[in-house]
Amino acid sequence: MSETRAIKDYIRTIPDFPIPGVQFRDVTTLFSDPTGFRQAVDALANPFTEDRLTTVAAMDARGFILGGAVAYKLGLPFVPIRKKGKLPGGTIAEAYSLEYGEAIVEIHHDAFDPGARVLLVDDLLATGGTAVAGVKLIERLGGHIVAAAFVVNLPDLGGSARLRELGVEVLTLCDFDGD
Amino acid sequence: MSETRAIKDYIRTIPDFPIPGVQFRDVTTLFSDPTGFRQAVDALANPFTEDRLTTVAAMDARGFILGGAVAYKLGLPFVPIRKKGKLPGGTIAEAYSLEYGEAIVEIHHDAFDPGARVLLVDDLLATGGTAVAGVKLIERLGGHIVAAAFVVNLPDLGGSARLRELGVEVLTLCDFDGD
Repeated sequence: MSETRAIKDYIRTIPDFPIPGVQFRDVTTLFSDPTGFRQAVDALANPFTEDRLTTVAAMDARGFILGGAVAYKLGLPFVPIRKKGKLPGGTIAEAYSLEYGEAIVEIHHDAFDPGARVLLVDDLLATGGTAVAGVKLIERLGGHIVAAAFVVNLPDLGGSARLRELGVEVLTLCDFDGD
Repeated sequence: MSETRAIKDYIRTIPDFPIPGVQFRDVTTLFSDPTGFRQAVDALANPFTEDRLTTVAAMDARGFILGGAVAYKLGLPFVPIRKKGKLPGGTIAEAYSLEYGEAIVEIHHDAFDPGARVLLVDDLLATGGTAVAGVKLIERLGGHIVAAAFVVNLPDLGGSARLRELGVEVLTLCDFDGD
């Protein structure tokens, strides 16, 4: 008679978004559930309460929803990693590959002090392109990535393996296989 | 000997961003401060703990950082209002004017049930164009806007007056006058 649902059960799949053939895993139905959002934030934050984190960083834009909540829960400051041109101060940048072409993400060069212990948060881990770019930005500022945490993992796309090859601890709350 | 700083003191001003002549009020220095982020989230959420809110909605993308944290703190679900084309499910849309041209924001049509009591969150209130569009989307889904809450108000640009003319309760944490 438990009311608890698995995180995965809150996530809706939208076929053919944003392009034909893609099964889009939509976390907004997790976030808009009365208990799902809290359950996800707690699951992303609780493993790290003893890790002497100093900073939560998150990826533009859905990562901001989770990252803001995780930072608040852990009593930590929040640092955004944004698409090129969105941050107003001095930045450093990293490019990453997309299916067609490449994209650039940026972080403010003064976002945290060297030696910061950073948790990187995003909603979904696919190929890991944006996450690896985020890791590089944080490390270039002298930060240490304690872990990277995601709600959804698409293991077939290799992002979790790629991050672990870089020595990054990876937490994901649920997997979706290709179909 | 108080260590408490006013919210306004954490906010950095970047001249001529994104275009010459604009004094950009940068909240990232508030968010990346060890106590500033928590102080801001608490100040946005605490006035509404007795208002029987059911939902926190926030505007893409900086609003997500605050909105996620406010929703978590209040134990409520989170609903994103996004720029056109970003939400994967069925949406309704509202256009609003920019200095040059117009933009469109969207909400999932099933984001909450009719009768929801919604707190709308964003980082900054200027002309109120995006906020008014957000209010209209929420009301079109049968939601009631309990209040709209922002860290920064630019009162000279008229957004706070415009929202209040629509009957919306407005909370802002600090003002910046034109200069």
